Amino acid sequence: MSAQAKTNSILVVGSVALDSLETPAGHREECLGGSASYFSVGASLFTQTQVVAVVGEDFPEVYLDHLRAKGVNLEGLEVVKGGRTFRWRGRYGEHFGDAQTLETQLNCFETFDPKIPAHYRDARMLFLGNIDPELQLKVLDQLENPHLVALDTMNFWITGKRKALEAVLARVDLFILNETEARLLSGEKNIYKAAAGVMALGPKVVVIKRGEYGAMLFHPDGLFVSPAVPLRDVVDPTGAGDTFASGLMGYLAQAGEVDFTTLKSAVLAGTVMASFACEGFSLDRLLTLTKAEVGQRLAALESLMKV
Amino acid sequence: MSAQAKTNSILVVGSVALDSLETPAGHREECLGGSASYFSVGASLFTQTQVVAVVGEDFPEVYLDHLRAKGVNLEGLEVVKGGRTFRWRGRYGEHFGDAQTLETQLNCFETFDPKIPAHYRDARMLFLGNIDPELQLKVLDQLENPHLVALDTMNFWITGKRKALEAVLARVDLFILNETEARLLSGEKNIYKAAAGVMALGPKVVVIKRGEYGAMLFHPDGLFVSPAVPLRDVVDPTGAGDTFASGLMGYLAQAGEVDFTTLKSAVLAGTVMASFACEGFSLDRLLTLTKAEVGQRLAALESLMKV
Repeated sequence: MSAQAKTNSILVVGSVALDSLETPAGHREECLGGSASYFSVGASLFTQTQVVAVVGEDFPEVYLDHLRAKGVNLEGLEVVKGGRTFRWRGRYGEHFGDAQTLETQLNCFETFDPKIPAHYRDARMLFLGNIDPELQLKVLDQLENPHLVALDTMNFWITGKRKALEAVLARVDLFILNETEARLLSGEKNIYKAAAGVMALGPKVVVIKRGEYGAMLFHPDGLFVSPAVPLRDVVDPTGAGDTFASGLMGYLAQAGEVDFTTLKSAVLAGTVMASFACEGFSLDRLLTLTKAEVGQRLAALESLMKV
Repeated sequence: MSAQAKTNSILVVGSVALDSLETPAGHREECLGGSASYFSVGASLFTQTQVVAVVGEDFPEVYLDHLRAKGVNLEGLEVVKGGRTFRWRGRYGEHFGDAQTLETQLNCFETFDPKIPAHYRDARMLFLGNIDPELQLKVLDQLENPHLVALDTMNFWITGKRKALEAVLARVDLFILNETEARLLSGEKNIYKAAAGVMALGPKVVVIKRGEYGAMLFHPDGLFVSPAVPLRDVVDPTGAGDTFASGLMGYLAQAGEVDFTTLKSAVLAGTVMASFACEGFSLDRLLTLTKAEVGQRLAALESLMKV
């Protein structure tokens, strides 16, 4: 990660999916989901994104229109002829937190082999959404010289594909994960020791998401702690992590800097974006979100920390 | 609570106890404990305290010397002839958090009838430690015109003595409680709704402690969120809540102000004091703590929030 990464677009590799959701606020069938969808729509308020993902022929055109309307570049979205789109069904309990997965249909995602279009290969900012770390490695191998590589993953890969994940981590600048994942990956219960353990695997910067408690930024220059946005009514936390990453990366892309001070503001931007994601099912709230609304909430969030 | 409460001493009513502790860091038998002990020693770095509590004749003189050495006024400490001191035995698991109570011997605490010495009755700042709310009411009835009444309680009283607790809450300015207690008392799962529910019971200011996640200050003028002090090695969290209150109240006593801005700094002082309490068994760390150490950690805590 160079001190100055003058970029204004982000390449995202992840999933585009059909989610069926049950939360205390209601339920939805086969709505737009997937890490690349949340990330690209969230980041669209800050910069342009190029999506590399796969869907089946059954994927509703109207959902692609939602992404295109936000200026998302879909040249890297592979549509598998006769294929079925990745589907996920999940349920959240009264306290929200982690979803209970009721059903996963990998479908065309099972054979996904990410191919980075030639004119994407000089991408300077890359977000590796939560997919098999072996695929994440394949993506990294196709890029020429990315300035900033950010990573998301999950317990499933930490436990099941540890070696491949470690190979990815050695090539990652910014790792965004939650507390449970940090503890699992490091084997440390204390969160500060866990963060140190995660940084020892390669990433120079680690952001630990703590849900309703906010987020922590671990950087060689110091520690920054962000509160969460006070939300009285959560509707659906699906995609909040990817949307957090979209605000964080989007802010960095817009700022053209990745120093500690800029990263702090980027974490706040991520926190604000994630809060909006939780206020509607699927991408509903994100699709209508304006820069002015983000700015207002960012100011409100900063006021919570003002001594 | 008046805008300006020019006070420099605090009356505390609570327990002075003998604690036996098991934590992942080790164990101790019959060490100095109790809410009034933690509170008065913690607050001694900021102001003078007067303790109203009860012990048995078996209470070790050396523990009283510890309190006296910190300038704590013990005129209101009743020593019951032939009586045995309140004892508590608790165990903390790997993640710390709430202790598992292994044994409680109320002993002379069972018949405790707090009597406020005549020259304490014009106390302007009062901390009602976690005791039976019926006793807390008796204390309030003996005071002439306190400017700031702060309260601690626990699940046991919220569930078992709801009516008496509500009568206390109607006369309290500042209520310090943890998330679980706020949810239990309000019946609300969402913490912002829970805080509103708690404030509706009377307290103008509510501070919700969140352990390793810090604390939140709910005030008519706004919300303030404090991170926790990053602790890599917790030894014993017993008394952290009372020590938090001691820093908060001590700071207010020293400042002579109780407005929102002063309360924010007071919450930070409480957070810092609580962190020291966790670094040793019993009051070990607090008894050697200096103002300079508190000041250093306060600066470090504020730096975590600096954007």
